Amino acid sequence: MKIITLTTDFGEKDFYRGQMKGVILKLNPEVRIVDISHKIGVYDVFQGAFIISQAWKYFPEGTIHVGVVDPGVGSRRKGIIIKTSCDFFIGPDNGLFSLALKDQKVEKIIEIDEKKVEKIFNDKISKTFHGRDIFAPAGAWISKGKKPHMFGKKLKQPVRINLPEPTFQNNDVIIGEVIYIDRFGNITTNIPASLLKGKVELIIGNKRIKGPFLSYDSVPIGTPLLIVNSFGYIEIAINGGNAAKILSLERHSPIKIRRLYG
Amino acid sequence: MKIITLTTDFGEKDFYRGQMKGVILKLNPEVRIVDISHKIGVYDVFQGAFIISQAWKYFPEGTIHVGVVDPGVGSRRKGIIIKTSCDFFIGPDNGLFSLALKDQKVEKIIEIDEKKVEKIFNDKISKTFHGRDIFAPAGAWISKGKKPHMFGKKLKQPVRINLPEPTFQNNDVIIGEVIYIDRFGNITTNIPASLLKGKVELIIGNKRIKGPFLSYDSVPIGTPLLIVNSFGYIEIAINGGNAAKILSLERHSPIKIRRLYG
Amino acid sequence: MKIITLTTDFGEKDFYRGQMKGVILKLNPEVRIVDISHKIGVYDVFQGAFIISQAWKYFPEGTIHVGVVDPGVGSRRKGIIIKTSCDFFIGPDNGLFSLALKDQKVEKIIEIDEKKVEKIFNDKISKTFHGRDIFAPAGAWISKGKKPHMFGKKLKQPVRINLPEPTFQNNDVIIGEVIYIDRFGNITTNIPASLLKGKVELIIGNKRIKGPFLSYDSVPIGTPLLIVNSFGYIEIAINGGNAAKILSLERHSPIKIRRLYG
Repeated sequence: MKIITLTTDFGEKDFYRGQMKGVILKLNPEVRIVDISHKIGVYDVFQGAFIISQAWKYFPEGTIHVGVVDPGVGSRRKGIIIKTSCDFFIGPDNGLFSLALKDQKVEKIIEIDEKKVEKIFNDKISKTFHGRDIFAPAGAWISKGKKPHMFGKKLKQPVRINLPEPTFQNNDVIIGEVIYIDRFGNITTNIPASLLKGKVELIIGNKRIKGPFLSYDSVPIGTPLLIVNSFGYIEIAINGGNAAKILSLERHSPIKIRRLYG
Repeated sequence: MKIITLTTDFGEKDFYRGQMKGVILKLNPEVRIVDISHKIGVYDVFQGAFIISQAWKYFPEGTIHVGVVDPGVGSRRKGIIIKTSCDFFIGPDNGLFSLALKDQKVEKIIEIDEKKVEKIFNDKISKTFHGRDIFAPAGAWISKGKKPHMFGKKLKQPVRINLPEPTFQNNDVIIGEVIYIDRFGNITTNIPASLLKGKVELIIGNKRIKGPFLSYDSVPIGTPLLIVNSFGYIEIAINGGNAAKILSLERHSPIKIRRLYG
Repeated sequence: MKIITLTTDFGEKDFYRGQMKGVILKLNPEVRIVDISHKIGVYDVFQGAFIISQAWKYFPEGTIHVGVVDPGVGSRRKGIIIKTSCDFFIGPDNGLFSLALKDQKVEKIIEIDEKKVEKIFNDKISKTFHGRDIFAPAGAWISKGKKPHMFGKKLKQPVRINLPEPTFQNNDVIIGEVIYIDRFGNITTNIPASLLKGKVELIIGNKRIKGPFLSYDSVPIGTPLLIVNSFGYIEIAINGGNAAKILSLERHSPIKIRRLYG
């Protein structure tokens, strides 16, 4: 059974998510639809890209990932279909899939041609909701075996966004930033654990937070710690507490980490 | 594969949604359940009606739409099953489906008879949760091929709610109101674009907002505009911004639009 | 078709829910996954236990309930698989399933052995996300017919949490507390209706709230009332209103109820 995942900034009150699912099921009643998230911050392409990059790899090979965080809908930004050695990714060409693409081989990128699509779908495309009118039906068609090249022509360079790069202040001090905060207040930084072998400390005002530890309960309840998260980056957490709130850190907050010796 | 959609004001924390799904799957393990929204404002029948009216038509023919926004549960308000030329609608008889019915032919309306239902379901019906005890199982039975008339007798006139009607102040000025605001802050009015042919402006304090434009990016980022939304009504938006917040408009706020010439 | 339900405190923005679903579908593409709730309060094991206890019994026999409210992840708290005469329950051994177990016969409890699991799953287990790395795949394997004892050895006594017990002040007055508040502001107390036969009143400051009534509309709109909820406990509600907000009651608030005569 084919799977289509959905990742959007549509929220869960409005009818947009439901419309997309109806469109998909009308075209392919057998496909399975899985919501990854509809709570991406409004127009927050980076957050959407990060979430897709963390989720896609857990799905079976051949899964079709439709993503819609699309501040430029109706403008000249393109729509794309990406076929990788693993999966399909369908959505606006604004970098939404670029973090996910780092871990797989891109085989083909198709720039969606709205005129071709209107002919295939036998329907008019709105200027305000490409998620429903282009990306969802394209996903459904691909789940039924249609080839991406039917929907347009090859694109060489899709728009890319990148994780911000950490910088060295000197040999032992590295400056990064907060890139993601989850519901628990756990803070993901852009600093790969591999950059700072061995023990380190985070310097925040006059506080020092040590790590990396193996698990949250390596320190007493209420104590901040550093940990290496599931994709190899330094995470700031508090055992049993909300690190983002207590440490007053948010997306883009600068992070300073120092290597420890001895 | 049959589809049952759910639209409720139950939220997503509580166990109500899960109970309804369990009840359905116990009766028909093969049916597919799709959440349209569980975030309808508490007891907000109009909002539920609007969301159902926007979502139902995108689903395959024969879909069963169960809606529960039900301030009168346990009172003398009736439960109904509506069969149209397209789909089924099941829920309280309080107008929740009346906006959806405008676009399709009603074939039959059945008033649910709780005593008949208790016999069919072989179960006692609570006074506090008809979504779980009547509407979800009725949907499951209908998805298995049972006919609506098994659940009660014909009803002539269901309760109806309507979109509020805009009024003309003079030939060129029309007064309407806000009927829906989505997560992006886009504002749907009750003014059909067909009423005001050609260019118009919205008058709000000493601001003038022009349109309708074809797409959000027809104006610079941060600029308000009017657009015709996907069901033909005037929508107030801000390119890349939250119109409802910035213009301080909410549900029921009055809207004044003037025809432009020249 | 087998069903796996998910109940977690992961929220719906992050990718944790999506990762769990991907893991399950990779192992068993045919299983059906139903979200009960991902909005359990962060680390609120009691709330999770209450919600699972209200939801599980509506699902078909043999359903696999995976629950993850897991403040002790990575610590020495165990993971468990419980087989009852009805269903399976999989998650941390912290009491999360203990309210659900009251209504069914426990047949077997297995303490999950991480080393066995790593061998079966052929994968390394993280210290920070057992929902994805242990409980979701264990659920998927069980949905494919694997036996619980494959994952570890028998456990005699799982961790239990209980509903707090109400106490009698004298023959006619009982002191309880608020145990759950839903989206509507309806308040579930820990006082079983069976304790206080006949009419009672709730004493709150100088207010008296009478009941139990049969349905919300037994009193005028805006009036508080007592009702017996669907599992036999006294519930405080307001017809058409939010009782928790208007009466300023929250989880753990003390509740005083007096038997009425005559």
